[in-house]
Amino acid sequence: MRESLEERRVCVIGLGLIGGSLALALHGKCASIIGYDADQRVVEAAVTRGVIERGLTGLTDVPDEIDLMILAAPIGAILDLIPKLPRLIPDPFHLLDLGSTKSAIADAMSRLPEHVSPLGGHPMCGKESSGLAAADGDLFRDSVFVLTPLDRTLPSTMALARQLVAAIGARPLILDPARHDRLAAAISHVPYLTAAALVDAAMRVDDDLAWTMAASGFRDSTRLAASNVTIMLDILLTNRAAVLDTLSRVQVSLQALAMLIEQEDEARLRSTLEACRSRRMGVFHTEVSQ
Amino acid sequence: MRESLEERRVCVIGLGLIGGSLALALHGKCASIIGYDADQRVVEAAVTRGVIERGLTGLTDVPDEIDLMILAAPIGAILDLIPKLPRLIPDPFHLLDLGSTKSAIADAMSRLPEHVSPLGGHPMCGKESSGLAAADGDLFRDSVFVLTPLDRTLPSTMALARQLVAAIGARPLILDPARHDRLAAAISHVPYLTAAALVDAAMRVDDDLAWTMAASGFRDSTRLAASNVTIMLDILLTNRAAVLDTLSRVQVSLQALAMLIEQEDEARLRSTLEACRSRRMGVFHTEVSQ
Repeated sequence: MRESLEERRVCVIGLGLIGGSLALALHGKCASIIGYDADQRVVEAAVTRGVIERGLTGLTDVPDEIDLMILAAPIGAILDLIPKLPRLIPDPFHLLDLGSTKSAIADAMSRLPEHVSPLGGHPMCGKESSGLAAADGDLFRDSVFVLTPLDRTLPSTMALARQLVAAIGARPLILDPARHDRLAAAISHVPYLTAAALVDAAMRVDDDLAWTMAASGFRDSTRLAASNVTIMLDILLTNRAAVLDTLSRVQVSLQALAMLIEQEDEARLRSTLEACRSRRMGVFHTEVSQ
Repeated sequence: MRESLEERRVCVIGLGLIGGSLALALHGKCASIIGYDADQRVVEAAVTRGVIERGLTGLTDVPDEIDLMILAAPIGAILDLIPKLPRLIPDPFHLLDLGSTKSAIADAMSRLPEHVSPLGGHPMCGKESSGLAAADGDLFRDSVFVLTPLDRTLPSTMALARQLVAAIGARPLILDPARHDRLAAAISHVPYLTAAALVDAAMRVDDDLAWTMAASGFRDSTRLAASNVTIMLDILLTNRAAVLDTLSRVQVSLQALAMLIEQEDEARLRSTLEACRSRRMGVFHTEVSQ
């Protein structure tokens, strides 16, 4: 396994928004980039557009000399694929996945034979659209790229991943898989569920003028409700414990707010809401007036 | 009371983002615009910047010849002010308020003497910043402007308000006050509470890396949590019943989602989340991938 980014031969599995964007971002920064997608038309489009140098028609075509295998497929496909990889590539290689939850994948990775050095990754970025057509080599720029090493992850794999993160303009954040999943539940998976619940509740008001009146506040609060459901189901079901734990915290917070409103306890309502406001402004440095 | 927009003499009370933006948007579209704000420095700034033609140093200075009084102050101030208006202006005038909840204000308006023709209004727009400095004559362009007439609202007041809404580039939506408040709870007030609860829950995870990992999904989901708390308290406490009702719907939806995740009931989880996704995409025509 070569350690320097420039000399590595990369194979990206899954050529949607994330895999396609990563292939584009790595252009000129590694020795070669080949790719595979379950949809052969996507593979052809990726070659035509120059996203990858060569497309694979099947996973059995992965060449032995691959140094770094990057899994950018949905979590379910990643979990299916991991046990098959050792037979596809008999020589030592670095393995990096980009799934949105890390514990289940780390567990599957821990059972790989010794010639594979696995590492979890999760780029914290997204876009209003999906698929190869939306792929963008600047997608990762200035965003956080979480790396979740296993005990068995080789230092050379970590070094290579750090080079990759730097090369695509992102900032590495090293976490263990369980901590990643706990934090991701709080900042991403449960916000998806509240977005869906807000849309669901607005539907139950059963008054179509709700949609006419909805402005930027509702648009932003519910943006995540438009996420791809298949991808989100994979996320929710592979991060059940952390999602349910955070969701119950949100429910406790909402119940406390409801009680303070019910009791018209303006002083405590103010202090709770001011604490949330100042924390939110501390993170994103903006205020909102409406 | 004159009915044509061009000949009307307007007084705007409250020169923050909304009042200041409205004064700017009405420039050249009415005979005169004067203004008042509880903060005299804001009045001076509004005159200097040309937002209003003349500033009032006190409410007792409101000239008798005002045709249209617009209340763009916080809800609490509007409720305080309404009973004082008839003594300040003895001649007939149109009254329009821009408060974010309508029932409590409509109730106060219903007790006004006959020489006042009151009408509720609520422009459905906001901005990431507040105050006169953020005022923008294009703020209302292409947005919905809710009008909530009372039984006693004169047709001439409605006609004038429709001219005003058209003049600032907005679209009128006529609702009764209770219906406005029910819809506003669903698309604005409760999304504020879920945003605050998401921030609260993320604080309780007690891991500062949550804020480092937070990306656009969390930013948008929690944007409303940065709203001005004093303004939001007025809103929540004058719309308690509808807010609590919608909040309980959201809690029921979240509980149902939690149960489906707990039971790993993928099929029902998928159909619920797909229904929310397609409703959300129908309103805002965007999808999200993450």
